[in-house]
Amino acid sequence: MELNCPIPFTDSDCVLLAHGGGGRMTHQLISRIFYPAFRNPLLEQDHDGCVFPVSAGRMAYSTDSFVVDPIFFPGGNIGDLAVNGTVNDLACCGAKPLYLTAGFILEEGLKLNDLERIVQSMKKAADRAGIQIVAGDTKVVERGKCDKLFINTSGIGIVPAGIHIAPSQVQEGDVVICSGAIGVHGITILSARESLGFETNLKSDTVSLNNMLSELLTSIEEVHVLRDPTRGGVSGTLNEIAQAANAEIILDETSLPIPEEVRAASDILGLDPLYIANEGLVLIILPEKDAQTALSVMHRFDEGRKATVIGRISSKGKALVRMKTIYGNYRIVDMLSGEQLPRIC
Amino acid sequence: MELNCPIPFTDSDCVLLAHGGGGRMTHQLISRIFYPAFRNPLLEQDHDGCVFPVSAGRMAYSTDSFVVDPIFFPGGNIGDLAVNGTVNDLACCGAKPLYLTAGFILEEGLKLNDLERIVQSMKKAADRAGIQIVAGDTKVVERGKCDKLFINTSGIGIVPAGIHIAPSQVQEGDVVICSGAIGVHGITILSARESLGFETNLKSDTVSLNNMLSELLTSIEEVHVLRDPTRGGVSGTLNEIAQAANAEIILDETSLPIPEEVRAASDILGLDPLYIANEGLVLIILPEKDAQTALSVMHRFDEGRKATVIGRISSKGKALVRMKTIYGNYRIVDMLSGEQLPRIC
Repeated sequence: MELNCPIPFTDSDCVLLAHGGGGRMTHQLISRIFYPAFRNPLLEQDHDGCVFPVSAGRMAYSTDSFVVDPIFFPGGNIGDLAVNGTVNDLACCGAKPLYLTAGFILEEGLKLNDLERIVQSMKKAADRAGIQIVAGDTKVVERGKCDKLFINTSGIGIVPAGIHIAPSQVQEGDVVICSGAIGVHGITILSARESLGFETNLKSDTVSLNNMLSELLTSIEEVHVLRDPTRGGVSGTLNEIAQAANAEIILDETSLPIPEEVRAASDILGLDPLYIANEGLVLIILPEKDAQTALSVMHRFDEGRKATVIGRISSKGKALVRMKTIYGNYRIVDMLSGEQLPRIC
Repeated sequence: MELNCPIPFTDSDCVLLAHGGGGRMTHQLISRIFYPAFRNPLLEQDHDGCVFPVSAGRMAYSTDSFVVDPIFFPGGNIGDLAVNGTVNDLACCGAKPLYLTAGFILEEGLKLNDLERIVQSMKKAADRAGIQIVAGDTKVVERGKCDKLFINTSGIGIVPAGIHIAPSQVQEGDVVICSGAIGVHGITILSARESLGFETNLKSDTVSLNNMLSELLTSIEEVHVLRDPTRGGVSGTLNEIAQAANAEIILDETSLPIPEEVRAASDILGLDPLYIANEGLVLIILPEKDAQTALSVMHRFDEGRKATVIGRISSKGKALVRMKTIYGNYRIVDMLSGEQLPRIC
């Protein structure tokens, strides 16, 4: 019976197809790499899913797949990116993130050391965000059928009573706050791709924002919009908000926190920083009267130290994003039509 | 500004990298293919995640990634497989599945028609299971960096009060029920791979089991174990249960529902049907006194019409799976060591 299958080298330092077979090798992978990192009572129920108690209330639920290339880059890797991305999606619903699931698709031949480094980063990111990874899945595909590894995370969280984040709440006169420097993650990934042949000292801004946002929501009664400008960048996200709120947003170019290195690299590559993906940034829309309080809360956090007002809602009734340029004239900031940077997250 | 990016053919019949960029093309893909199929108020919140009310109680949470090759096969495709797989994981926790998320990783060049067929199958499977797909994500990778498409689903469900599915509840004398024919999905996938050059009339058994299992749990007070024997097959799953329950399970070979076609194909390929993946099958362990009631409930459902007792718990205190063979002797049924069939789900 045991001879039905090709006998694998169990001391391999690479992922083998057998690691995805659901047999002993799969269990080894789980017990040697995943369990030691993620260990918690819910995961250790060791069932097809986990079961946990909930209180009556509202829940937020989200998912994201991560295919970033390269899988390691300055400031992070695909693992912490995958945890922070879903944590931030939940936090932008106004939720306190609770639990995450992780689905791995591994390419045969991936170094087990690399997988372990990535899993350890996920653990660290999970700890920072105060969440637990409670269920997972691993599949292995043949060499050449994926690119090292892809990770899907889904997450659930609890939305505290009284919090209603929704673009429909946006009012004329509201301010748009940006929590930090624009374009850093995207330019970091591009510079990490060897073929592009340029270097920067930038590090990805990937970080979980839920602690800062939770403090913000405690301090300010009326937060109308929270949204992290990942793929599609600040422009894409603001255009989505403008459409959902049916409002005109006017950005002030002089106030945009675009680092000199991002600007320089964007110029060389013919990119606009407003379309570049960010992974530790949040755009916040709230009443002008609360702007100072919001900024002072955010400035207490590393990830919000450079938070600043970048624009305002000029009117309702027409979905549009415009920018007052450094020359004093206005131009339309449109949504990106096609693909600027593939596999940025 | 609009000229920053390569201008894509928006009437392409294939997936383009631009469909993953987070801009206008991504929105087109969502609004033309995903939204029309999955439309529901939670999905249409159109936020980074969705928010919904919950009552106090217990929740089940699970995830699975699907990389099956080929993506279309007799009896189903990667889409309904992905929905049924996660629905069944939740149902095997004793939960009533509520909501699913779907994360798509698409290969540049995938036919949009194929994607649409798959999404429609997901919709149909979701409707059959009585669940809603409430959040999603789409990434696109370059040609050759994945294999057509991979789908991750995660799901949450509510566990009704009084239901406690757990291998630790297993008692000596309990019976093991198998809900239907063994080995059908795996052999179907193998025969659908052109290179293998053999044909069968088999169709994958992929189906959601939650309606039948919900009825079962209503009819019988004490169900100790529910588990779907997917990867690793019946042997793998029974070994996991034996270990978790610290019990010996004895199968009766004469009672195993293995179709003649599965037996014949397994013989040709040198495979053991007990290690072959199933996608519409559930193994149930419950007290012998309830066996007849359980079978009569299950026989009322298409997916349980052939349900039968295949073994029993002979003792506790030692984790082991043995089989009484057709010759009357016993052999150990071990967990598969390596990989029998890659990318079966």
